[in-house]
Amino acid sequence: MARLFRSTQQFGNVLGRCRTHACAATPRRSPVEHWWLFGLCSHKLHTVADGPKSCPAAAPGRLPFSTVTPDDLDFFRKILPGRTITDPDLLQSSNVDWLKTVKGSSEVLLRPRTTEDVSQILRYCNRRNLAVNPQGGNTGLVGGSVPVYDEIIVSTALMNNILSFDSVSGILTCQAGCVLENLTLYLEERDYIMPLDLGAKGSCQIGGNVSTNAGGLRLLRYGSLHGTVLGLEVVLADGRVLDCLSTLRKDNTGYDLKQLFIGSEGTLGVITAVSILCPRKPKSVNVVFLGCETFEQLLQTFQLCRGMLGEILSAFEFLDSECMRLLNTHLKLPNPISGSDPRHDGEKLHNFLEEAMTSSLVNDGTVATEESKAKTLWSMRERVTEALTHDGYTYKYDISLPVDRIYQLVTDMREHLGDKAKSVVGYGHVGDGNLHLNITSPTKDPEVLAAIEPFVYEWTASCQGSISAEHGLGLKKRNYIYYSKPRQAVALMSDIKAMLDPKGILNPYKTLPDNLK
Amino acid sequence: MARLFRSTQQFGNVLGRCRTHACAATPRRSPVEHWWLFGLCSHKLHTVADGPKSCPAAAPGRLPFSTVTPDDLDFFRKILPGRTITDPDLLQSSNVDWLKTVKGSSEVLLRPRTTEDVSQILRYCNRRNLAVNPQGGNTGLVGGSVPVYDEIIVSTALMNNILSFDSVSGILTCQAGCVLENLTLYLEERDYIMPLDLGAKGSCQIGGNVSTNAGGLRLLRYGSLHGTVLGLEVVLADGRVLDCLSTLRKDNTGYDLKQLFIGSEGTLGVITAVSILCPRKPKSVNVVFLGCETFEQLLQTFQLCRGMLGEILSAFEFLDSECMRLLNTHLKLPNPISGSDPRHDGEKLHNFLEEAMTSSLVNDGTVATEESKAKTLWSMRERVTEALTHDGYTYKYDISLPVDRIYQLVTDMREHLGDKAKSVVGYGHVGDGNLHLNITSPTKDPEVLAAIEPFVYEWTASCQGSISAEHGLGLKKRNYIYYSKPRQAVALMSDIKAMLDPKGILNPYKTLPDNLK
Repeated sequence: MARLFRSTQQFGNVLGRCRTHACAATPRRSPVEHWWLFGLCSHKLHTVADGPKSCPAAAPGRLPFSTVTPDDLDFFRKILPGRTITDPDLLQSSNVDWLKTVKGSSEVLLRPRTTEDVSQILRYCNRRNLAVNPQGGNTGLVGGSVPVYDEIIVSTALMNNILSFDSVSGILTCQAGCVLENLTLYLEERDYIMPLDLGAKGSCQIGGNVSTNAGGLRLLRYGSLHGTVLGLEVVLADGRVLDCLSTLRKDNTGYDLKQLFIGSEGTLGVITAVSILCPRKPKSVNVVFLGCETFEQLLQTFQLCRGMLGEILSAFEFLDSECMRLLNTHLKLPNPISGSDPRHDGEKLHNFLEEAMTSSLVNDGTVATEESKAKTLWSMRERVTEALTHDGYTYKYDISLPVDRIYQLVTDMREHLGDKAKSVVGYGHVGDGNLHLNITSPTKDPEVLAAIEPFVYEWTASCQGSISAEHGLGLKKRNYIYYSKPRQAVALMSDIKAMLDPKGILNPYKTLPDNLK
Repeated sequence: MARLFRSTQQFGNVLGRCRTHACAATPRRSPVEHWWLFGLCSHKLHTVADGPKSCPAAAPGRLPFSTVTPDDLDFFRKILPGRTITDPDLLQSSNVDWLKTVKGSSEVLLRPRTTEDVSQILRYCNRRNLAVNPQGGNTGLVGGSVPVYDEIIVSTALMNNILSFDSVSGILTCQAGCVLENLTLYLEERDYIMPLDLGAKGSCQIGGNVSTNAGGLRLLRYGSLHGTVLGLEVVLADGRVLDCLSTLRKDNTGYDLKQLFIGSEGTLGVITAVSILCPRKPKSVNVVFLGCETFEQLLQTFQLCRGMLGEILSAFEFLDSECMRLLNTHLKLPNPISGSDPRHDGEKLHNFLEEAMTSSLVNDGTVATEESKAKTLWSMRERVTEALTHDGYTYKYDISLPVDRIYQLVTDMREHLGDKAKSVVGYGHVGDGNLHLNITSPTKDPEVLAAIEPFVYEWTASCQGSISAEHGLGLKKRNYIYYSKPRQAVALMSDIKAMLDPKGILNPYKTLPDNLK
C-alpha cells in the first residue's frame, strides 16, 4: 500500500507518462460510505459561446402558429395577475440559453403557480394555436429550453413547493419548479439524498431534470430517472391534467404512462409535479485517484473495482493525459496528491488497491478520505472544461458507447484530425459508458467542424452508440437522431407526438427531426 | 448480542406473542455480501384452482375477429414447418393458465424461432384480422398469458438464444424466450446475476418478465425493469420490427419507446429480444429473522436497518403471527432457529442488531450465515402460500400501499370480515410497500367474496394504493383499473393501444377495461 502514497513530486512525474487516470469513489469504514466524485457539467464553466449552429442543427422556418394579440395578453393577465411578463428586459434571460448559442424572440413569459394555472394556459394556447416553450432552470446544453421564435415561455420557477416526504420509504413529492439543490438540502436534513446530482444543481429544476432525463453523477449507483421517478403529474397540450403522481414503488395497473414524459423534453406535455425515490444519505466517502498506462488497463481496473467493491462504488470517472496536460498548462492546477494514512482505509478498499497494484494494472495513485482532499481530486475532473476554454474554441460531444470502445473514438479522432485540431481530449463517466469528447482549435473554424462532423456521428453509429448520452436532442441535435435511432422508431415517436399534441404547440422545433425519412 | 441466539424452545415461546416478524438480508464480512431472502410466488405452491371469476373479472363476449381457416394453416405451416401446432393434446397446456382459472380454446400454437418469423406471423394475422395471444412461460397469475377464446397462441419458447454478454459492463442481450433460470445460471458462471428473481424462474421467460414488468425479490436493491432494461426489440401488431435493442446505459436521443412495452402485457407488441443491465454476483449472504411486538416497531426496525445497512440491504420481508400459526399448524414446520456465532457477523450487522435490541424495537431473532440455515428461514416465508392452501379456499390480493399503511389493511379486513373468514393473513415485501393479503374460508363462498370485494379495492384506492403491485391486470383485474388509475390515464392508454394496434389483435380482453369511462 505504501507505494500508493507518494510525494507531490513523485506523482507529478508519474502523471507525465500516464495515458489515463481513473477516479473511483469507494467506501472507507462503512458499506454505506461513498463520495460523488465528478460533476456532470459545472454551470459556471460553460461559458464558451459558439454562435448559432449551421444546418442541420439550425432552426427551420417558423411554423404557422398564431401570434400573441392584446386579447391574449388580457386573458393571461386575468389568470396570472402580476405573473404575465412582457417587459423585454425581463424576458431577455429566458430567451437565451445558458451557452448563449440559441436566442428566441418571445414576448411573453408566464409564471404559473399551480397545475390549474398551467392547465388553463395550455387549454387556451391550444385553442388559439399559440406555441409554448416550457422552461425550467434553462440549463440545457442543446437549445431545448428556450424559444426558437416567439413561443410563449411557460416557466415553472414559481411552482417550487415540496408536497410531501415519507421518511420511511424515502419518497419525495414536489412541484416541478423545485431547484435540485434545494431538494438536496431539504433531504440531507432528513438523512436522505436525491438520486441524481448535476453541476447545474443550483439552477436546474426537477421538472426539467425529468423532462430531459438528466444523467449526472449518481447514475452508476442509483440508475436513471426511468427507474427512480415513481410518479408524474403532467398537463397535456390541450390542458388535460394527467395524474400519474403515484408514490408507490410498485404499480402494475396498465401502461406506465409517466415514462413517455421522461426525456421527451417538454414536447409531449408539461410536467407539473414529480414523485421520486430517494436513497439514504451516505455516512462518509472516499475518493481514489489512480494512474494507468493504457485505457485497456483502466478498463481492467474498472472490472476489478466493480468486482471487489460492488454497488457501493458510486462513480468511476476518467480523464486522459491530454486533459492533465491542459489542467497543468492553463490552470496551473496544484497537484492533488497529499498524504493519506492507509490505516484509516477500509479493509475492502485496501484489498482492492493492493490487488490493483500487485497486478500492475495501476502504477500510481492516491486516496482521499477527507472532504478537502476529495474536493481537490474532484477539481481535476471538474475543471477540465475550464482548461479547455483556455485552449481555444471547443467542439463538444456527449457520446455513449460500449465501455470497451470509449477511448478508441478519441484515438481515432486524434488521428483523423491530425494537425487540424489543437487538442483532442477525452474524459467522462466510464461506469456509464459515457465519453465527453472535446476538440479545440485556435478559433472557430468551419473546416475543422467539417472534419469532425459527420465523422464523429458516423463513428458512433458504427458502434451502435448514442450521439447524445445525457444532454438530449433539443434544437441542436434533433436532425442527428437517425445516427442513433432507426427510421421506424422515429416514425413512432412522431405518431406519439401527433397523438398527444396534434397541433404541435409544445416546444416546437425540438427533439424530433424536421423531416421524417 | 447473546440475547439474539436463543434455543428453539425459547424462540418458539416468543413467536406465540409476536405480532410480526421481519426478515432482512444483510452483509456478513463484505459490503457486497447479501442473500435473497424470499420468493415471490413459488410455482409449485400455486395449485389452488378457484374457477372462472364472475363479473367484472369475467371475459366479455368474443370480439369479431376472423377464425382460422385451412388457408391460414397452410400459410403458417409454410413459414413455420413443424412449428405450427394444431394437435389439441399439445395445445392443452398452452390454453390453460398456471392457476387453472382461465381456459382458452385456441386451435393453433405457433413456435417462431426468429424475429422475422414473428414479424411474418403478425403481418399476416393483422391483415387477416386474426387475434393473437403472445405467450412466454405462462406463469402469470391474472390470466394474461393464455387465450380467452380462439386467439392464435404465439409462443416465444424457441426464441431462447443468448445474443451477447459484455463482461465489462454487465449488459446481457438475449431473445425473449430465454428462461430466467437459464439466464441466471449463464450469468453466475460469469460472476454476474440477473437484476430480478422470481419463484417461477424455472419456467418464466425474460420476454414475459419484461412484458409484465415482473417485480420479485431483487426490486428493493436493483429497482424495477423500467430502470434495468436497456433495450428491447419489439414486433408491432402490423409486423413492423421496432429495433430499440440498445446496449447503452445512457441514450437521450428521442422518446424512450421501449418503456411503452414494459408492463403492457403483450397488448402493444411482441417483445422478441431484451438487453438488460446485470449486477455483479454477491460474494456471500446473511439472513436475519427478527420478532417485533407491533407492526409499528417493525417499520421502525426497517428504518433503522436501511439507515445502518444502506443499499446492501437486499430484501426486507415480513409475515405476521397468523402466518406463523398456519405454518406451525398445517405444515409442522420446524422452528428455523439454530445456533449462530456472533463472532462471524460483520461489524455493521452486529451494530444494527445491537441497536435494534437495545432500543427494544426487536424482542428476539436469529442470524443465519450458512446457506442451509438461510434456506430454513427462507422457507418460513416461501411456504406461507402452501400453509394457506391447507387452511381452506384462499382469496388472494397483491396490493401496493404507502409503507406505513401496509398492515392496517390486514387489521381492517380482519375486523370487517369478523367470523365470515377463517383466517386473514398478511405477508410480503415491506421494502417495496407490497402486501400479499390472503383470506381463507372453508370453501369457496360468494358471500365471503362479496364481503371482501370491492371493500379491498376501495380501501386500497382510499390510500392511493395499487390494486396490482406486481401481478398486472391481465384478464382478471382489467376492470378494476379505475381503483388505481384516473379516467384520463385510462383514456390515454386506450389511445396508445389504438395507435399501435388499431385492429386490437394483440392479446385482446387484457389489461384495458371493457368500457371506457
